[in-house]
Amino acid sequence: MSAPLKIAVAGLGTVGAGALKLLQANADSIAAKCGRSIVVTAVSARDRKKDRGVDVASAAWFDDPVVMANQADVDVFVELIGGSEGQARQSVEAALAKQRHVVTANKALLAHHGVMLATTAEKAGVTLAYEAAVAGGIPIIKALREGFAGNSIQRIYGILNGTCNYILTTMRATGRDFGDVLGEAQKLGYAEADPAFDIDGVDAAHKLAILASVAFGTEVDFKNVHIEGIRRISALDITYAEQLGFRIKLIGLGARADGGIAQSVYPCLIAPDSPLAAVEGVFNAVVTEGDFMGRSVLEGRGAGEGPTASAVVADLVDIAAGRRVPTFGVPVAHLKKSPSVPVAERIGAHYVRLVVVDRPGVFADIAAAFRDESVSMEQVLQRGRDVNARVNVVIITHDTKEAALVRALKKLEANAAVVEPPHMIRIERFPAP
Amino acid sequence: MSAPLKIAVAGLGTVGAGALKLLQANADSIAAKCGRSIVVTAVSARDRKKDRGVDVASAAWFDDPVVMANQADVDVFVELIGGSEGQARQSVEAALAKQRHVVTANKALLAHHGVMLATTAEKAGVTLAYEAAVAGGIPIIKALREGFAGNSIQRIYGILNGTCNYILTTMRATGRDFGDVLGEAQKLGYAEADPAFDIDGVDAAHKLAILASVAFGTEVDFKNVHIEGIRRISALDITYAEQLGFRIKLIGLGARADGGIAQSVYPCLIAPDSPLAAVEGVFNAVVTEGDFMGRSVLEGRGAGEGPTASAVVADLVDIAAGRRVPTFGVPVAHLKKSPSVPVAERIGAHYVRLVVVDRPGVFADIAAAFRDESVSMEQVLQRGRDVNARVNVVIITHDTKEAALVRALKKLEANAAVVEPPHMIRIERFPAP
Repeated sequence: MSAPLKIAVAGLGTVGAGALKLLQANADSIAAKCGRSIVVTAVSARDRKKDRGVDVASAAWFDDPVVMANQADVDVFVELIGGSEGQARQSVEAALAKQRHVVTANKALLAHHGVMLATTAEKAGVTLAYEAAVAGGIPIIKALREGFAGNSIQRIYGILNGTCNYILTTMRATGRDFGDVLGEAQKLGYAEADPAFDIDGVDAAHKLAILASVAFGTEVDFKNVHIEGIRRISALDITYAEQLGFRIKLIGLGARADGGIAQSVYPCLIAPDSPLAAVEGVFNAVVTEGDFMGRSVLEGRGAGEGPTASAVVADLVDIAAGRRVPTFGVPVAHLKKSPSVPVAERIGAHYVRLVVVDRPGVFADIAAAFRDESVSMEQVLQRGRDVNARVNVVIITHDTKEAALVRALKKLEANAAVVEPPHMIRIERFPAP
Repeated sequence: MSAPLKIAVAGLGTVGAGALKLLQANADSIAAKCGRSIVVTAVSARDRKKDRGVDVASAAWFDDPVVMANQADVDVFVELIGGSEGQARQSVEAALAKQRHVVTANKALLAHHGVMLATTAEKAGVTLAYEAAVAGGIPIIKALREGFAGNSIQRIYGILNGTCNYILTTMRATGRDFGDVLGEAQKLGYAEADPAFDIDGVDAAHKLAILASVAFGTEVDFKNVHIEGIRRISALDITYAEQLGFRIKLIGLGARADGGIAQSVYPCLIAPDSPLAAVEGVFNAVVTEGDFMGRSVLEGRGAGEGPTASAVVADLVDIAAGRRVPTFGVPVAHLKKSPSVPVAERIGAHYVRLVVVDRPGVFADIAAAFRDESVSMEQVLQRGRDVNARVNVVIITHDTKEAALVRALKKLEANAAVVEPPHMIRIERFPAP
């Protein structure tokens, strides 16, 4: 057996405490797998006195993670603080500067500063590992960088945010509306007190940007991810989608497209036999399409103490065993800067719901607006009629360029008979398994 | 860039030719990932003149793979011959003896001689890699040895044979009977001319024995896998299962059980919302349950040129990049010899179909046989009645020890009114995702 791998853990919240519990619970088998033991010799958190259900008395305590990164005599710095700036970023930069390997669960940090940090790690000759940043219970970073390494990846898409998936699953199961279910999710601990990062799609976009970089060998390009969250999805849309044979899921999608890479996070209608339709509640799933492997689906718990700790420890085991992988699969110099293909270029089908006042000529106006932009309709449903004579007109379009549809909807929005901004949700026809 | 990794490929069938095509098609990105190129410098196959759609002229030709293993100046020997003995085994042993890394897709070889070969590889200080041996399109060996390394795995189960899954999927979709669908699968190339290895469950059992070893850290124990194939599954059983709310799948299952490890391959009834129920046709899927990660499902193409080649190349990339993992996740000395828990110890529900002559007292005999063994029935259906007054009695049992049910069925088999050997299929209540 070699000397133990000494690690410092910054942040002892759910994930940090979970990682320490795991390292204790399965210490023997982990040592057998690594050929050495993994020992936590330094820790840092905000409140030293808090009971975390795990004993940290034998580790040196640091109030400041940046000081710990600079001073602790360790092989690996584990950053579980979170956030793209502040102590998280400073401590990771300090650790890399000190030629310490870094393991992090911080998707925001990687999405915003991934290329810079990978460059620093490469120059320092150390590993920057982040399996826990994307879908903890799913070893998708390892699969992309190593398991699928022979392939040219054409497309990667998945359910990347458990909070949104829980809310959409519950809305569908209960018929309740967004705000109501969100409130419940917050009480149950499935949504944060400030849920914006999750429900507005930002968290999923961080993960998607990381996945796209590794899948396509391109520089992380978070700022060009088109992001839409689930706030505008109503119980009504879920019901209509169901009647039309679809489910609504928040999907992150990266694809090679003409002239570049398209990256999007948006809610969309998918067929019930799509591999993602059955992924419910707090589960995540990622579908990868490669030229030789074909399609693979990896599913598991996306977040939470156990799955995220499992991912952190997997990275530690690799480091302890001496296994090295470039941060984004290839050395930074090989990462391509790919142009971003905007979502307006997307060609696909759409679900459109218009709330209109039911009076003569409205339907002709709708048809004309679509015709003028060469958007053809596959299906039209007229549903409901409330006391104010307002009806919902639901249209499924044939494949069309998104920009054309958006122009048609802009025109309709200016029509006095259209009394709400049009509701548009994309339809993704993912192949069945 | 380091010096190229030189490889010898033995066996240029579908998989071998596929691996060569992949190495050519994606040579640049593979070199970027490895920090060096991978070059095929020697090949061996039965027929030198056959057109395989890939140019091997630049590689040294060997008629005999064992000679190639001994003589070719390579870093890695890739064995794609197949079979647990003969040239496959001899060439792998020769390559390891020459301190060459070995990459193989040979599940039979690993299932029968895995511990011996791992010991040899370990002593020689080389890698023995076999991602392609189990579910090519799914990086399950990598996930178990590395991605899930922090966890104690409690159970692993999956659809491990695409031929059987294709046949069962088609039987269900078309209502046709086993022999008919098998014949078609043979014509389509989804089943071998001699289909016994696949349809009798041996191929799945090879894979299950390997998965169980890696998952549980135990010595490969193929001889203790309980194996049943799908020959006895009739269209009738599939129809009844459907009516009762189940699908029939051939499942390989390894689990920690009281006092040891239970390993089985058998067709079973599973609920339609189980993660495996939707895995259709030639797809494979593996569910892993770990103490921290929870449940993960990995799905992809199990076999065929592209997926298997993808797995072979993933192993080569790891070797080229200098990443090493003990053959079964831990050094051989750490592998446990776990007692085998026989299937008779299994406690679970069962589907039983009895074909009986419809005359007074038969049903009382059935009820008595079950009662005498304390097997209680959850549901009883009596279906059909043919010209000879024969009826199908379908019974779903409550959870019971298998040995007790087997005794009850033995007693009934001796009953003159029971005109076919009882049809028993286990029910597995896998949790929904």
